[in-house]
Amino acid sequence: MKIQPVIMSGGSGTRLWPMSRKALPKQFLKLVTDRTMFQDTALRVCGKQDEGYRDPVVICGAGHGAIVAEQLAEIAIQPAEIILEPCPRNTAAVAAIAAAWVARGDEDALILLMPADHHIADDGGFRSAVTLGAKAAEAGNIVTFGIAAQTPHTGYGYIETGEQLFPSVYKAAAFKEKPDRETAERYIKDGRHYWNAGIFLYKASAMLDEMARYAPEIKAAAVNALEKSALSGGALRLDEAAFSACPSDSIDYAVMEKTDKAAIIAPVNVGWTDIGSWSEVASEDNSDNVICVNAANNIIRSDGPLIAAAGVEDLIIVATGDAVLVARRDNAQDVRAIVEELKKRGLQHLL
Amino acid sequence: MKIQPVIMSGGSGTRLWPMSRKALPKQFLKLVTDRTMFQDTALRVCGKQDEGYRDPVVICGAGHGAIVAEQLAEIAIQPAEIILEPCPRNTAAVAAIAAAWVARGDEDALILLMPADHHIADDGGFRSAVTLGAKAAEAGNIVTFGIAAQTPHTGYGYIETGEQLFPSVYKAAAFKEKPDRETAERYIKDGRHYWNAGIFLYKASAMLDEMARYAPEIKAAAVNALEKSALSGGALRLDEAAFSACPSDSIDYAVMEKTDKAAIIAPVNVGWTDIGSWSEVASEDNSDNVICVNAANNIIRSDGPLIAAAGVEDLIIVATGDAVLVARRDNAQDVRAIVEELKKRGLQHLL
Repeated sequence: MKIQPVIMSGGSGTRLWPMSRKALPKQFLKLVTDRTMFQDTALRVCGKQDEGYRDPVVICGAGHGAIVAEQLAEIAIQPAEIILEPCPRNTAAVAAIAAAWVARGDEDALILLMPADHHIADDGGFRSAVTLGAKAAEAGNIVTFGIAAQTPHTGYGYIETGEQLFPSVYKAAAFKEKPDRETAERYIKDGRHYWNAGIFLYKASAMLDEMARYAPEIKAAAVNALEKSALSGGALRLDEAAFSACPSDSIDYAVMEKTDKAAIIAPVNVGWTDIGSWSEVASEDNSDNVICVNAANNIIRSDGPLIAAAGVEDLIIVATGDAVLVARRDNAQDVRAIVEELKKRGLQHLL
Repeated sequence: MKIQPVIMSGGSGTRLWPMSRKALPKQFLKLVTDRTMFQDTALRVCGKQDEGYRDPVVICGAGHGAIVAEQLAEIAIQPAEIILEPCPRNTAAVAAIAAAWVARGDEDALILLMPADHHIADDGGFRSAVTLGAKAAEAGNIVTFGIAAQTPHTGYGYIETGEQLFPSVYKAAAFKEKPDRETAERYIKDGRHYWNAGIFLYKASAMLDEMARYAPEIKAAAVNALEKSALSGGALRLDEAAFSACPSDSIDYAVMEKTDKAAIIAPVNVGWTDIGSWSEVASEDNSDNVICVNAANNIIRSDGPLIAAAGVEDLIIVATGDAVLVARRDNAQDVRAIVEELKKRGLQHLL
């Protein structure tokens, strides 16, 4: 088994403001462990050549090539390539770029496409799931990872399992966008729905074929942008004109909901969390620069200033040297509105 | 009428942490107006020689002589003297020092003793009250200022009026420490109780006489510390050994509750507020470096970092470059516990 890890690192992490900033989005921060989420993602599979994982390809925003190189060097991982997006074009474009890049060398190689902002507690378990899925991927399926739902989460997408293809691998019968509460509760009871982890395992040729069928414009633009790409400071910069012509769509919408090659490994029990907002970041009430007096159940983080909380509960309190966020835990999505207001006020230095 | 203003500026302002610090306590901060509370106190009566007010004497902590001189220079007021306390010894010692200093020149001069951390909206009204009280003070009374209570506040002391001495001036029949809620409610209904503003008007000789009778140790230590004082950097530094021998007591306990010379001007309606904690500092939700999304009724202050609040109510949020406070508005007293914890952790730089 030869697997080419591709790390999708183009996210902006708006909802993790004020720590996540344009210049250094959440995936490059140490929010969950003592390594950054990007580093944890790379280490999950890389540096394990004996298990068949190649050096990673990283696809990131044009402004983040240097930080990617730096963070990989810190963990002694050599990238196979760092590919710079001149503008964000969502995950379908990234999946196509990954397939086109790998197909240059070996179009039957397997690609493991992973977002850089997920936390997985059990890396070994994750690699076991990849091994389980590899056969289905080699048979031409585009394999997704179905997380055993812990709660009727309305912020995640769900995948319904169909007929069994291989041990623990099923046809993906349907992709369901973020459901309402009632639907989500039905999903976690019926035993056929799993959280869509947003991680994909596929042959380069399979993705390119399905893209040609269901998202030909995306495929054409991605292939074109890669062909016209140029080395820039050690990274491969996609051609700006070609890439910006690419329609912006998610891989789920553009391909997965349409193709009959969609498969799902389920259940995947690896302690998976999409670190999307402060709600998913554990509390650190006892850290050195936090003081709590009659305060409990808060998410408190600081990268410098001491935070003192008195008599408050269920809050998110995050401080950096130049900004402080105070929000209700059940209101973590409001952070987006704050970032919008910062833009409106022209406070670029805080974005 | 000749009146010697003496500004008591030795407070530490712990409950207004993190803005109020040892090096720069609350009275030297711009918390309520665009001048510091100390400057507002000085301007309330000084620079008004035509009304009989002399240049002020300031009594402050030994570490604050320079900031006092600087803040007076900013508002073009020349101090008659800056007196430095080598250690804090509470208000009875300050009242005695003030009396002993003034008595050197003219023991029948009137002293207007004022804390530096009160906000008074109507300075003209306050001076009118002083004028009303001057006759009683010249007759040998120690005159207090009775604020018409707006609410049954349990954090203030109350004074009960006795027989009338002069227009709007009464014998002070009793001093009541911070009452419980029920008692406070009775006070504001009975028409005989007023908030004790902690401001005093008296002849130097009257205070020295009453001190000799009721607090002879305090008087002796204060007189001794002043006699042995020495000029230091333009200020008069009280002798440390002599002053630290002074018992630490409040003027209310040491003298006012015992003397039969206590009088009260009442009602004084001048928009008086003791700025003791963040609860008394008005909100600034709309300032440049505050963003609120679905947030209301919070007290939000920053001297630098942007503060963003989402979905929260009734909080105190205060940020400086090195510390952030988040507390419930009805919990403003907990700030003291936070400062205690800072001391316990040895975080001197944050005190």
